[in-house]
Amino acid sequence: MPDAEIIAIGSELLTPQRLDTNSLYLTDQLNALGVEVVRKTVVGDERERLTDSILGAMARSQIVVLTGGLGPTEDDLTRDAVASALGRTLVFDQQICDQIEARFRSFGRKMSEINRRQAYLVSGAEVLVNDRGTAPGQWIDHSGVVLMLLPGPPNELKAMFEHQCLPRLGKVLPAQAIRTRHLRCVGIPESDLDQLISPVYKQYPSVATTILAVSGEIHVHLRARCPNANDAEALVAEVAGRIEPLIGDRIYSRNGDSLEKVIGDLLRSRHATLSVAESATGGLLGGRITAVPSASDYFVGGFVTYSDEMKTKLLGVPAEMIAGHTAVSEPVAQAMAEGARARTGADYALSITGYAGPDGEKIGLMFIGLATPDGSEARRVQLPGDRERVRMFSTNTALDLLRRKLLAAPGK
Amino acid sequence: MPDAEIIAIGSELLTPQRLDTNSLYLTDQLNALGVEVVRKTVVGDERERLTDSILGAMARSQIVVLTGGLGPTEDDLTRDAVASALGRTLVFDQQICDQIEARFRSFGRKMSEINRRQAYLVSGAEVLVNDRGTAPGQWIDHSGVVLMLLPGPPNELKAMFEHQCLPRLGKVLPAQAIRTRHLRCVGIPESDLDQLISPVYKQYPSVATTILAVSGEIHVHLRARCPNANDAEALVAEVAGRIEPLIGDRIYSRNGDSLEKVIGDLLRSRHATLSVAESATGGLLGGRITAVPSASDYFVGGFVTYSDEMKTKLLGVPAEMIAGHTAVSEPVAQAMAEGARARTGADYALSITGYAGPDGEKIGLMFIGLATPDGSEARRVQLPGDRERVRMFSTNTALDLLRRKLLAAPGK
Repeated sequence: MPDAEIIAIGSELLTPQRLDTNSLYLTDQLNALGVEVVRKTVVGDERERLTDSILGAMARSQIVVLTGGLGPTEDDLTRDAVASALGRTLVFDQQICDQIEARFRSFGRKMSEINRRQAYLVSGAEVLVNDRGTAPGQWIDHSGVVLMLLPGPPNELKAMFEHQCLPRLGKVLPAQAIRTRHLRCVGIPESDLDQLISPVYKQYPSVATTILAVSGEIHVHLRARCPNANDAEALVAEVAGRIEPLIGDRIYSRNGDSLEKVIGDLLRSRHATLSVAESATGGLLGGRITAVPSASDYFVGGFVTYSDEMKTKLLGVPAEMIAGHTAVSEPVAQAMAEGARARTGADYALSITGYAGPDGEKIGLMFIGLATPDGSEARRVQLPGDRERVRMFSTNTALDLLRRKLLAAPGK
Repeated sequence: MPDAEIIAIGSELLTPQRLDTNSLYLTDQLNALGVEVVRKTVVGDERERLTDSILGAMARSQIVVLTGGLGPTEDDLTRDAVASALGRTLVFDQQICDQIEARFRSFGRKMSEINRRQAYLVSGAEVLVNDRGTAPGQWIDHSGVVLMLLPGPPNELKAMFEHQCLPRLGKVLPAQAIRTRHLRCVGIPESDLDQLISPVYKQYPSVATTILAVSGEIHVHLRARCPNANDAEALVAEVAGRIEPLIGDRIYSRNGDSLEKVIGDLLRSRHATLSVAESATGGLLGGRITAVPSASDYFVGGFVTYSDEMKTKLLGVPAEMIAGHTAVSEPVAQAMAEGARARTGADYALSITGYAGPDGEKIGLMFIGLATPDGSEARRVQLPGDRERVRMFSTNTALDLLRRKLLAAPGK
């Protein structure tokens, strides 16, 4: 199987403010075909450095993906550098020029003279149509090395790769099938999860297993590669079938859905509504729940009670309870959830109160409250990290508490 | 002035999930010394590919920064690859080994045998002390090329670069001073701002000017480089002195402070308090305000009123007003802000209601309400982008509306 390299082109990608993120998408796509990315390079808009990078990559790898530098300005040197690296000429293509002109016309604009630069092809290249921008891509087969010239804007690049490059790669690469499983888990640390499942996945060296910690959640990726699809599917199903029972109900999704999407679907299917009462998170939990389109089907709203006074005034938490237990306590978390449920009329209410820092001995101590039609409860958790992480992680804990409760509860 | 290259080492950095972010910090630091980063490379944990990358970088650039691959396991090959690229040997250093052992002892743990690998130095290298981890760095001057071997974990890398590398680079690099200005602006699109200030900055080719769009805000960076500090300061002050009046009060900070930090400081200095009422943003505005430590000095809390019913029930927005104008309207935004102010007793209240999508003709139409001790108002804005961007950008608009009001208002 050939290896790939990715070269991202653009001086802005060499500043302290910008990263090449296209390579993540491209790596994902190439890996799915069974191709490993063995090197990534970022170079600026300089002809000689760029030509040198292209020659180096071609000497090492059989697939070279170049992104960026296909625009109309003098800074856009990818076409020139590739032609120069391959010892080929650039050829003006009237048909491409007409397409670019038509694209401008369709927006009621006139094509500038400089856009003619984008109609030059490396001699012998196939055009990769760009249906989302002016810059066409190019596909070049040069003595067994495939070069792809793709535009920098992510939406143009993704559409072009999917529609133009994948079919061409399918013809070039050896037949093989990849089948995957993505398990998203919550409520278990990365190292514990690894310890739990490594005795299984280590028995399957032909299945690539990746364990990733993402914002306090753990994602497990399994990838089986076989010459035919049935074998790959059978293999990944076998490994998943042994791993999933070990993780159990800490798996919250198998299709890439976020935790907030999962609880939304659970609420909708039960015709139940949700409200929130947030202290330390200041609205992050509500913000996350409403990031899901159509959250209005089940989310009614709630309260941000950052001061003690607001906990009493807006949620009815007794001032004596706060005085006796402090605002960061199990009874207050529970009373906040009960208050939010009563005052909104929602079926469920989640609350968060805690110490988010940045300073203080108790940083990371959080209480999560949950009020339901059948009563209320509160959980104490000690979360790791700084202010930002503690606040984000506590919304995971809250959503997971609700998820488990909903899974156990029948619909209305 | 010499050029630099950065090589990030680690197979995990070639997966679809991970990016090398250390290079952003390093680029910022190197740029501040006047050194440009001309290439960035990511390579996996493979001896030959790594050695090849090091040789390539040394042939092109006078400063080569390597990050990662200094751990104790067999995957950690940076030391070996550098030794092999330079034709030098690896030498065991008992003193480093003792330090690593002492570090483990201080945590009440015993050093593993494999950690001895971290006590090997490339022959002739200077040790770069790591006060935050076990892996020491190395500084090598090889025929006029400087190589820095730095650990991958960002906190270890940053401390080592700052304390160990900067002083050494100061001796190696030609004397020069950099002086900068960072202007953060809101309420103007990137292209309009560029048009406004480009006639000025184009007159100063020796001042590097960068304009960046970040989450709906615009950041302007000016960087003047001169042989001495006084000249650099005078030059950057001159350019900033001509640019700032053009942008005017759309500049909200000159010291890197976020918009939420700036409004927090304004509120605190006026002994004023703030509350919120959020519909489309579901809590994001409150979440953002409370991301600032000690926000409890001025932020009391508020309401998430996602459904129409909650706008009436929790904020007292008349149901007839919603029926007559829809929930996404100027009067409702204003009534939400007034309701939040009255029900919390805060001096100020901000509200957000709008269409965040993902679908529908009116996506991006948002109304921002502001209630103050002197009355209330609402603003209509049409924001670009998808659901996530519209929600985030509308919190900018809300915070900026409050900022302008506070700047015009005297303290209590």
